[in-house]
Amino acid sequence: VKKEDLQPLKGFRDELPAERIPKQAMLGTIARVFESYGFAPLDSPALERASVLVGKYGEEGDRLLYRFRDHGDRDVALRYDLTVPLARVIGSHPELTMPFKRYQIGKVWRAERPARGRFREFMQCDVDILGAGSLLADCECLQVICSVLEALGVGAFRVEVNNRKLLNALLAHFAISGRDRVHASLRILDKLGKIPAEDVRDLLVSEVRWTPENAAGFMDCVTGGLGEAKARLPADDPGLAELEQLLELAELAGIRERVHVNLSIARGLDYYTGTIYETFLTELPGFGSVMSGGRYDDLLKHIAGRDLPAIGVSLGISRLFAGLHELGLVAPAASPARVMVASYGAETARETLACAKALRDAGLPTDSFPGDAKLGKQFKHAHRLGVDVVCIIGPEEAEQGLVRVKVLSSGDQRDVPAAGIADEVNRALEKSGATGIESG
Amino acid sequence: VKKEDLQPLKGFRDELPAERIPKQAMLGTIARVFESYGFAPLDSPALERASVLVGKYGEEGDRLLYRFRDHGDRDVALRYDLTVPLARVIGSHPELTMPFKRYQIGKVWRAERPARGRFREFMQCDVDILGAGSLLADCECLQVICSVLEALGVGAFRVEVNNRKLLNALLAHFAISGRDRVHASLRILDKLGKIPAEDVRDLLVSEVRWTPENAAGFMDCVTGGLGEAKARLPADDPGLAELEQLLELAELAGIRERVHVNLSIARGLDYYTGTIYETFLTELPGFGSVMSGGRYDDLLKHIAGRDLPAIGVSLGISRLFAGLHELGLVAPAASPARVMVASYGAETARETLACAKALRDAGLPTDSFPGDAKLGKQFKHAHRLGVDVVCIIGPEEAEQGLVRVKVLSSGDQRDVPAAGIADEVNRALEKSGATGIESG
Repeated sequence: VKKEDLQPLKGFRDELPAERIPKQAMLGTIARVFESYGFAPLDSPALERASVLVGKYGEEGDRLLYRFRDHGDRDVALRYDLTVPLARVIGSHPELTMPFKRYQIGKVWRAERPARGRFREFMQCDVDILGAGSLLADCECLQVICSVLEALGVGAFRVEVNNRKLLNALLAHFAISGRDRVHASLRILDKLGKIPAEDVRDLLVSEVRWTPENAAGFMDCVTGGLGEAKARLPADDPGLAELEQLLELAELAGIRERVHVNLSIARGLDYYTGTIYETFLTELPGFGSVMSGGRYDDLLKHIAGRDLPAIGVSLGISRLFAGLHELGLVAPAASPARVMVASYGAETARETLACAKALRDAGLPTDSFPGDAKLGKQFKHAHRLGVDVVCIIGPEEAEQGLVRVKVLSSGDQRDVPAAGIADEVNRALEKSGATGIESG
Repeated sequence: VKKEDLQPLKGFRDELPAERIPKQAMLGTIARVFESYGFAPLDSPALERASVLVGKYGEEGDRLLYRFRDHGDRDVALRYDLTVPLARVIGSHPELTMPFKRYQIGKVWRAERPARGRFREFMQCDVDILGAGSLLADCECLQVICSVLEALGVGAFRVEVNNRKLLNALLAHFAISGRDRVHASLRILDKLGKIPAEDVRDLLVSEVRWTPENAAGFMDCVTGGLGEAKARLPADDPGLAELEQLLELAELAGIRERVHVNLSIARGLDYYTGTIYETFLTELPGFGSVMSGGRYDDLLKHIAGRDLPAIGVSLGISRLFAGLHELGLVAPAASPARVMVASYGAETARETLACAKALRDAGLPTDSFPGDAKLGKQFKHAHRLGVDVVCIIGPEEAEQGLVRVKVLSSGDQRDVPAAGIADEVNRALEKSGATGIESG
């Protein structure tokens, strides 16, 4: 293989242990939170019939599909997200009990132009509740968002909610109707935050033929509070009612202080039908939404032929991980091991192997150096892996039933009875304070 | 989407929660064992340059690659295994510290003719030690195999070991040399167990032009014990020495009784250079090997241009999971939830939401019914999910600060103070004895 061909394909990445270890820890925390709410894991193929995917993501999406002919000359494509495949799964498994709560963590593929933080292969992480039209489901999605971010310890955050029915009513109030004009307007509104409000207003005028007055009024309204909308809509507007009931449920669920109405949240995708939300980390202003989603009551009918209400949350895994990084919450580590047992040669192999086993049995991930290098080289290896405590058993220690426990960072070492080795290593780890390769 | 197009592609599968939940539990156990030995997780792309993969799996393998032209007209293919991509990763990351111990769990794709238990997309699970030529690494692989199977609780098992150098010496003793004849002979020997010994012998004669006498002698030798080989080889045969030293290390590591020499273990792949092994579950005779691998000291040089010794273990995830199934060790579950909190409407929404939160905070995965169905329907839903304990808070209970805890299977129910709900649910779960949908 040629040297340049050893690099991953453009837009693809190798994830080495230093990144993969903390990311797996994050994903494990997220999955635990999902399961604590009773969401069940599901897996579906990476490859789907093109007919299932094409036309679901707009023209741009169709162009970005990795699509090819398989050995049976079938038109197939790598999945573009996890939502459309979920709808297909629901369609082919009528035996699934509704309401159905599932989560899925998996890779998706899009032939985008690579850019900083944008890849052609990336991980998605979704929870969805299918077959439940109640606002209890909407509230549960907000609860899940809060529980995930609390479990990850990201500090303060804001879940910003809106409602598509309410947005539609406001658009109607400002004389915008018809599917195309509504969707075009919402896609422009979705740019708010990335471009200034005046530019959004101007785009509404130039691209969707709003009157300047209405565009200005609409922008004032959606960037104002709930009162602005109430002043313009009838008291019994259904979107307004849903949003207010959702806030009430959030109050009952004890998460009201996390939830903020933001009438300018639009979510670009066409398929949303009710509650929509995005989530921002207070400590990282301008960082973008890390968890978002909403209600999409018509998509399942369209794809799976089943009339099932649905709501979901999608986590931006890469962005969330980058956020944890910026907040100093990621401890890189080149190895899951916390301690290494050095190799001292055949003479003490039995004691060395027994020492490693005792440490593992005590729950301490333990590397054994698999060779016969000089001790200095082995210490250097441990240090590079971010392992600060090393156990050594030479012939003298073996004879006396001892193990030498060495803390690399301080140079401290003591000989301790082999019988109590796990306790001793735990003590050494506490003293060392080493938490990963940062300490090196 | 047409109804028939809602099925997954031929050879692909949707993994619904009832299967995914226990499989994830199995994978979690396996990953924990790997990490307890200090193996670090690594991830690499699903898609690779075709030039990296082609020619590494034989002609048959080349034909089975999902290979296509991407948007940049690059010749690309979905990965066929995790070993060749690992070699590419090593080639492109010279900064990785050696010895490098990594594990990887991920999907691979092969356009095989689908058959019972054979799919076009399936999961592989590998551990490898790179940059360590010492037999300590070989022994650690055997230890990992034993620890994984002990952690999974599969009962008795046998790790059968052999050595390619020793096999080569035996082949030479029986007048077989040259790369092609050696590999062809080993691939035929690898069929032993699937076809009778006489047929293997006959194939050696008919396909690789062995003399009938030598073929018979060779088969006697490899189906006999280590003594048979010793009788035919010089005392200082390097393969023999390696195998005997490995058995000694296994003794020192306390796993000698698990390890059995089997000179007829051949492993089909061409790239093995030393120790090779397969693993069989005693309780499932004829089930095939569930964990296998060996030393491949030349592959990294070939692919990555780095002269690094290497040894690894590959787990047959599907087969292992099927084995756990047959041994009655898989508890299917349609939900990770252990308890469900019923919905009783707006009047007691606050108490109901608080009850679910208290249960989750106590570490009990808790489903909340997301709607307003009748209680009978909610109980049926819980039952279908394999959830046997349901908490209900009606207006009377709410007023008195109580929760009704109902065990569906027995019909028992009692009202308990909301403050101690987690303890009470744990007691109810113990009494119910329900462990999944099997109880339903």
